[in-house]
Amino acid sequence: MPELRQDQVTGWWVVVAKERAKRPDDFIRRGRAAPPTCPFEYGHESMTPPETLAFRPDNSAANTPGWIVRVVPNKFPAFTPENHAEVVDGLYRRRTAYGVHEVVVHGPEHDLSLATYPDEQVAEVLRAYKLRYEYHKRQPYTRYVQIIINHGKEAGASLEHSHSQLFAIPLIPELPKIQLKGAADYFYQNNRCIYCDIIASEIAEGARMIDQSEHFIAFVPYAAKLPFETWITPLQHKSQFETISDSERIDLASMLRRTLKRFYNGLDNPPYNMYLHTSPPGYDLTDAYHWHMSITPKLTIQAGFEMGTGMTINVTIPEDSAKFLRGVQHIEHGN
Amino acid sequence: MPELRQDQVTGWWVVVAKERAKRPDDFIRRGRAAPPTCPFEYGHESMTPPETLAFRPDNSAANTPGWIVRVVPNKFPAFTPENHAEVVDGLYRRRTAYGVHEVVVHGPEHDLSLATYPDEQVAEVLRAYKLRYEYHKRQPYTRYVQIIINHGKEAGASLEHSHSQLFAIPLIPELPKIQLKGAADYFYQNNRCIYCDIIASEIAEGARMIDQSEHFIAFVPYAAKLPFETWITPLQHKSQFETISDSERIDLASMLRRTLKRFYNGLDNPPYNMYLHTSPPGYDLTDAYHWHMSITPKLTIQAGFEMGTGMTINVTIPEDSAKFLRGVQHIEHGN
Repeated sequence: MPELRQDQVTGWWVVVAKERAKRPDDFIRRGRAAPPTCPFEYGHESMTPPETLAFRPDNSAANTPGWIVRVVPNKFPAFTPENHAEVVDGLYRRRTAYGVHEVVVHGPEHDLSLATYPDEQVAEVLRAYKLRYEYHKRQPYTRYVQIIINHGKEAGASLEHSHSQLFAIPLIPELPKIQLKGAADYFYQNNRCIYCDIIASEIAEGARMIDQSEHFIAFVPYAAKLPFETWITPLQHKSQFETISDSERIDLASMLRRTLKRFYNGLDNPPYNMYLHTSPPGYDLTDAYHWHMSITPKLTIQAGFEMGTGMTINVTIPEDSAKFLRGVQHIEHGN
Repeated sequence: MPELRQDQVTGWWVVVAKERAKRPDDFIRRGRAAPPTCPFEYGHESMTPPETLAFRPDNSAANTPGWIVRVVPNKFPAFTPENHAEVVDGLYRRRTAYGVHEVVVHGPEHDLSLATYPDEQVAEVLRAYKLRYEYHKRQPYTRYVQIIINHGKEAGASLEHSHSQLFAIPLIPELPKIQLKGAADYFYQNNRCIYCDIIASEIAEGARMIDQSEHFIAFVPYAAKLPFETWITPLQHKSQFETISDSERIDLASMLRRTLKRFYNGLDNPPYNMYLHTSPPGYDLTDAYHWHMSITPKLTIQAGFEMGTGMTINVTIPEDSAKFLRGVQHIEHGN
């Protein structure tokens, strides 16, 4: 059963989940072999744990073909709902990694991804995000929900079929905590959302803008941590992703798909990571926080300097990254 | 010229160093081609900037063959001593990335590394660390010195010839700051060094121990962030690495080489990252902080969950990692 262990000096928690690997000496051959057949295709539904959500326009039975988006528990979970216990033993503090680890399968087609699906399919994936957020935030153990995408082997995907992962976990992790604290500090001092101020400033300046729609903007942050890091965030202040309306969701789907298509066309279908930051349940800084997606192609390696300092070295100027992504052609679907 | 940009929400700094890459569209072919000849071998001294330190038992001339360890400025520096300026422009704050970025070439032999060199050679590398620490800490701009090793392409090394990198930088980065604060908090509450307490506890428990010598221990931390993460730290309390005595340095060389040989033999010469954490100049928590090296083989990929949360998922139980590394055979030199 996975557990959480606390670093005695920093207070940061680590997930220890041996279920996700084999024995230590299996590292000599580095990593798990890919399964012979893809568990995320039609007809392979029994290869995954039973689904927790699926959109089935044809009213097909659960765990059979016919779905267009399917959510299942991760077969090798980093968090499990088995029990909830904490042990403090001298300097050592650990907890069960109580929570949920799910997979959102983006569609049945093995060779498509969010960059190449129609906008309508991406909108269904976002609907699954919203529904699972709403479900998990109501659970008593959930303090935080993290949705991510690892696309491509170099970005950490163990299966190539396009999917997201959702973690419902029993604590607010350190990086979101630092971000929430920064937003709260700014709000106390200025009585405004710092993200709203950044958005206004980015639109006025323009140099880091990539795209703008009715409800969203895509831009490269001023202090982008890595080349081509891109944020998508609502123009209007909103702290919680899951309050997204249907029309906003459809607009976001198009913005997300277009942004990923810029990566796909401009950077030759790169591996990438996405994470969604939104105000946590029970700790909603309604006026101070502003939800956003961060998407970063995996083009460089974080190494000793980053591990030792927490600072990243971005080898591309953010304004150059934005200019390059703005200029990518044929981002409309079907081009 | 590289610059530092501050994230407006978190306050964390990012290095923007376009000198270390080409134009954005060069990422399509992903990364720099390897140079045709290795700049770190005898006879190629003119391929690097002039040396800042070299050990030359034969009294050979600077920037010619004959050295046994050689320190040179990085040809593609992330920090440069060119000027020192800060600009605040509305929400945006940036500084020149003022500082020094050096390379410590571990020896002239292209096919050896710290795992396979004799202890005496490793001791000379550590002597270079000590001398460069002592030099850089005296410079008025230096607030922090980070020494790291990226070994192997997957661990971020752009040249395969064994080397370390040293960064003398004008601020204390966030991760060391969090660690220093944690150590200070523990000291205020307990009047003891937390690392000294951890060391005593690890020796008493034994389950995470790997090795012990006259002056040092090697162990897997309780909340190890990744598989086989190993710390080497002095048994006696000492906040600053650069105060190491000659006999301690020779003992450390053997411990470091043996530890890396455990990786080399047990995990098939894996890529790895090392970083050295020591009390910063001008901010020496003499009684509260305790210097240590962290060495981690690069066997897994940090992905969306880690980027979004700052939490890592360690797929190996720390006690299993330690047991495996303890059991590795033939770690003495010449075996």
